[in-house]
Amino acid sequence: MSAALAGGAGLAEEMPEMVLKAIGVVRNGVHEPPEPRSDWDKVVSEIIVDSSLTEALDGLEEFSHVIVLYWMHRLAGRETPLKQRPMGRPDRPLKGLFPLRTPNRPNPIGKTTVRLLERRGNVLKVEGLDALDGSPALDVKPYMPRYDAAPDAEVPSWVAN
Amino acid sequence: MSAALAGGAGLAEEMPEMVLKAIGVVRNGVHEPPEPRSDWDKVVSEIIVDSSLTEALDGLEEFSHVIVLYWMHRLAGRETPLKQRPMGRPDRPLKGLFPLRTPNRPNPIGKTTVRLLERRGNVLKVEGLDALDGSPALDVKPYMPRYDAAPDAEVPSWVAN
Repeated sequence: MSAALAGGAGLAEEMPEMVLKAIGVVRNGVHEPPEPRSDWDKVVSEIIVDSSLTEALDGLEEFSHVIVLYWMHRLAGRETPLKQRPMGRPDRPLKGLFPLRTPNRPNPIGKTTVRLLERRGNVLKVEGLDALDGSPALDVKPYMPRYDAAPDAEVPSWVAN
Repeated sequence: MSAALAGGAGLAEEMPEMVLKAIGVVRNGVHEPPEPRSDWDKVVSEIIVDSSLTEALDGLEEFSHVIVLYWMHRLAGRETPLKQRPMGRPDRPLKGLFPLRTPNRPNPIGKTTVRLLERRGNVLKVEGLDALDGSPALDVKPYMPRYDAAPDAEVPSWVAN
């Protein structure tokens, strides 16, 4: 249990141990985050799913978009400053880490909506996944507007669009 | 490391250990999933964030919607059938688990887009979170249409809207 929790709101005692299993691995040959960040949009990645789970993908190819949860393995164990600047830009106001999409978070889980280009057996080919090569994949969920879209969402003015 | 991975695509050796920390806990008094599932839409929950992380929430209140990642603690360790029926309905065709939003997955991580009603110190009041009372919260990310919306998404006809 984390020191933060043990010293915090007294939540520690009721929390179960939470250990993740990789369901696969991301392959895209990208070993450093591109600049600008929007260059991720066109990156094509393969998610090589463990072959014992191939059957569990059946039907995913009927969706145009999927949500990928992955482990930002290169950041695991790093310190996470509570306040950060959006996009690391000095001209932006300091914000807490939670209102940012910084990868530097207590749990380094990435969540990205991507276009599913192809499913071939246990391999998913996707466009727009911002995961470095070798990232463990944790989950793939179908993008369903009913659950995932918030058409009336409002964001503050310091958010880059 | 999971047996599935060890016996599968040979990914096991390169995977780091991935252990999660709760950043808080969900409180809503809901101890069983409601029927129909759409009843979750109006459930109001409080996410009690560990008080050591209060400052890290600063600025989240500027967003109308947030994405909550949480641990489906009551399902952890359960068997996850590779094929399931959408919504458990016998009249729907069998699909792999990944094209479904079933909570029964290799990693029981829920991902829900919710309306942020209020932030008071370390407490987030949200509407539409489909997490049972006591679920550990793993992350809260701001909903940004740029990253999260897929306006041209297509879904198969067996998806309930």
